[in-house]
Amino acid sequence: MTEQNLLEKVVSLCKRRGFVYPNSEIYGGLANAYDYGPLGVELLRNIKNSWWKTFVHDRENIYGIDGAIISNPKVWEASGHTTGFNDPLIECRSCHRRIRADHLVEDVLGIKVEGKSLKEIDAVVSENKLKCPSCAGDDLMPTRKFNLLFKTSLGSIEGEKSDVYLRGETAQNMFLCFQNVVDSFSPKLPFGLAQIGKAFRNEVTLGNFTFRTFEFEQMEIEYFVREQGWEKHFEEWKKQMMGWLVSLGVSEDRLRWRCHSQEELSHYSRRTEDIEYDFPFGGFKELYGLAYRTDYDLKQHAEFSGQDLRYRDQETGEEFFPHVVEPTFGVTRTALVVLLDAYCEDPSAGSGQARVVLKLNPRLAPYKVAVFPLLANKPELVKKAREVFEMLRVETGHAPSLPIAWDDRGNIGKRYYTQDEIGTPWCVTIDFQTLEDDTVTVRDRDTTEQERIAIPDLKDYFSVKLSV
Amino acid sequence: MTEQNLLEKVVSLCKRRGFVYPNSEIYGGLANAYDYGPLGVELLRNIKNSWWKTFVHDRENIYGIDGAIISNPKVWEASGHTTGFNDPLIECRSCHRRIRADHLVEDVLGIKVEGKSLKEIDAVVSENKLKCPSCAGDDLMPTRKFNLLFKTSLGSIEGEKSDVYLRGETAQNMFLCFQNVVDSFSPKLPFGLAQIGKAFRNEVTLGNFTFRTFEFEQMEIEYFVREQGWEKHFEEWKKQMMGWLVSLGVSEDRLRWRCHSQEELSHYSRRTEDIEYDFPFGGFKELYGLAYRTDYDLKQHAEFSGQDLRYRDQETGEEFFPHVVEPTFGVTRTALVVLLDAYCEDPSAGSGQARVVLKLNPRLAPYKVAVFPLLANKPELVKKAREVFEMLRVETGHAPSLPIAWDDRGNIGKRYYTQDEIGTPWCVTIDFQTLEDDTVTVRDRDTTEQERIAIPDLKDYFSVKLSV
Repeated sequence: MTEQNLLEKVVSLCKRRGFVYPNSEIYGGLANAYDYGPLGVELLRNIKNSWWKTFVHDRENIYGIDGAIISNPKVWEASGHTTGFNDPLIECRSCHRRIRADHLVEDVLGIKVEGKSLKEIDAVVSENKLKCPSCAGDDLMPTRKFNLLFKTSLGSIEGEKSDVYLRGETAQNMFLCFQNVVDSFSPKLPFGLAQIGKAFRNEVTLGNFTFRTFEFEQMEIEYFVREQGWEKHFEEWKKQMMGWLVSLGVSEDRLRWRCHSQEELSHYSRRTEDIEYDFPFGGFKELYGLAYRTDYDLKQHAEFSGQDLRYRDQETGEEFFPHVVEPTFGVTRTALVVLLDAYCEDPSAGSGQARVVLKLNPRLAPYKVAVFPLLANKPELVKKAREVFEMLRVETGHAPSLPIAWDDRGNIGKRYYTQDEIGTPWCVTIDFQTLEDDTVTVRDRDTTEQERIAIPDLKDYFSVKLSV
Repeated sequence: MTEQNLLEKVVSLCKRRGFVYPNSEIYGGLANAYDYGPLGVELLRNIKNSWWKTFVHDRENIYGIDGAIISNPKVWEASGHTTGFNDPLIECRSCHRRIRADHLVEDVLGIKVEGKSLKEIDAVVSENKLKCPSCAGDDLMPTRKFNLLFKTSLGSIEGEKSDVYLRGETAQNMFLCFQNVVDSFSPKLPFGLAQIGKAFRNEVTLGNFTFRTFEFEQMEIEYFVREQGWEKHFEEWKKQMMGWLVSLGVSEDRLRWRCHSQEELSHYSRRTEDIEYDFPFGGFKELYGLAYRTDYDLKQHAEFSGQDLRYRDQETGEEFFPHVVEPTFGVTRTALVVLLDAYCEDPSAGSGQARVVLKLNPRLAPYKVAVFPLLANKPELVKKAREVFEMLRVETGHAPSLPIAWDDRGNIGKRYYTQDEIGTPWCVTIDFQTLEDDTVTVRDRDTTEQERIAIPDLKDYFSVKLSV
């Protein structure tokens, strides 16, 4: 299986089985936009719930918020996004394709151009006689900068509208709520604000499935610290970020940290490191980012709003702008990496075709268990299987029900393969022996081994498996 | 406590305690937009999780999806929103305030004007000499229609952009994915698609806290049925909708169904009924809607896209457009009603001030339990209280941890009141007796009664309480 093959196979599986569909497909789609189908939405929920539990519920010094996508436009002036949030684009005179200049240079020559002026980039392009990746023509226009914020208008009377922006990052909501949260909760430093939500960047997208989409979902923390010692928090967050990612089951040997060069840093950052994943398209690319934003944002908002946004230490009485360490996680990029990383083909399946298995961490799998009656035309098997199905679904106390699949179509081997392909960790089959001794077979997705378990023990059996 | 008082008190509590903050408050806000704070985001999560469990996980014929906010613009032409999704607005020549004409007539005269022409509305306004509700001036401009879709541009080069819309309802994603889901899952009628997500309407907003905001979150189901018998499904959904709402603890006597008149129906609907809540501003107003959309949407998309979107019955071979019954729930409006409905003042508290209690359903409460050491300066009490706190937080098997608050500030009475105000159902206090016999006091928010429970029994105690 080649790398390109892997991507194609995952894209195809995602569409066929209901993880990810092209958005507006009946209208020919829209600029690399995607919708998440019935299995994809469960995968996203599991990722987001794991993140929220780890970084909000299980900690006492991080506060969740859910802010608006559209805020007062002054926010984006203060943050520097209306002026400093740009992509360098080159247009091909022949095919009119627009190309990210930095990506073109990086992909073809393997060198980074961040921090270079547009003239310097154009010099690199012309010296190396770079061509349009789409039509191979060499008539490229000079590089131009384009702002990434989506603009829209608020107020429903034409000509009397005020321009507003779709947020380009969730981060700004946290700075806007900073003072409110301090007033409500009197937190001591260090403390963080966390948010999950959509953000929008008017980027040129180049395929690679859901890797880069103009609409995407972030999980982000602004962690407020004293300036002195920010490095310690930065290092601690590196561990936390990688630890959570690896706990999802992503292969460590496909992950690495990469430190941004001085030229590459965003306008607000003094140190940034990315977790990169070894993607099947072009190798290591950004997955998550960790940025030291200094006190840039709070200072800017204080200046632009005229409000005093300094933090007051309750014990010492000092007043100052806290500094910020910002771990940013992509929801949809996490889902993509989880799917790519979990995809396996098992050639030893016996039949002519390789067995396709999504080796998802059980915590992330859309269904935890599938329940089958061995034969669909035997009412006594179906009845018993429904009982097991309902038993596993029922909520007990504060414990939520398990998401369980039901399948009574085709032969049992096909049903196993159907569940393997969507990552269901265990299949429970009710057969004739069940009617005699109240046991069922539980078949493991990864080993394909089966064991017989007594029905009354099933709930505990899966509880233990899922708590590992 | 007057009705207006109630709203003001809830708004103030929400800001003070971290449920809801005005968006961009440091910049003077933005057109009635709000952010959800640390407690508000937990309330929203609990509402959405309850809905998803009830209508997706606990059912076998409803499929969740998570679609993009921005789709191909043809979607909104086909759906009729680019032409038929308007508000009638009147502008005051004196103060330039824009007023919803239908709301003005309804609020002042108590009559509905839906379906009337703009001329007819203007006639009602001038016959009754209606004035601007803002400045009381009588120089009102004629009513004009304004489209509610937010428009933005995709593609990052000025002058080469394509107009796209922020979705005005989550519904259209479900119609776009209809064929994809049928291909992936071969569902039998009736079946539904469900989605939770943000939608945007460029409306004139008039305060009343979060009741009407231009950015809001919906929970929506498109339920596909055969035309024959749609009434039965409609009636069934009325029960389901009201049943879920009442299960959240909202008072039934403040809820009612109201059927839309013929003139009032949306362009796609042949029957619509709203659940209305008796709000403290102006009485009964829309909370949820249930619409029979016929086969309008699938037919329109089939026509505009040229795709065959008919459903094929696997058994009979018939091909036809399914009809749609659509239950729509507002996330943020649910949160508003839950907060208004839960707010109580208990004058019998003894101290001069009334005790403020948010009588939230424990399932919706941001914290389920608060744990206190009786005295913060006794290390042995604090140590024991931390043990109890950690014990209740720890995840066991598939059961999630309980969200638990910790408080060791001020006296115990103040801590109780602090928790009452944010709706925490139970407070656990570790006192000197705990050190002797390993029991704690559990104090009930609603009755203020206390009982002693042995620490090893606490988890089961709360599990039982929370599963009721």
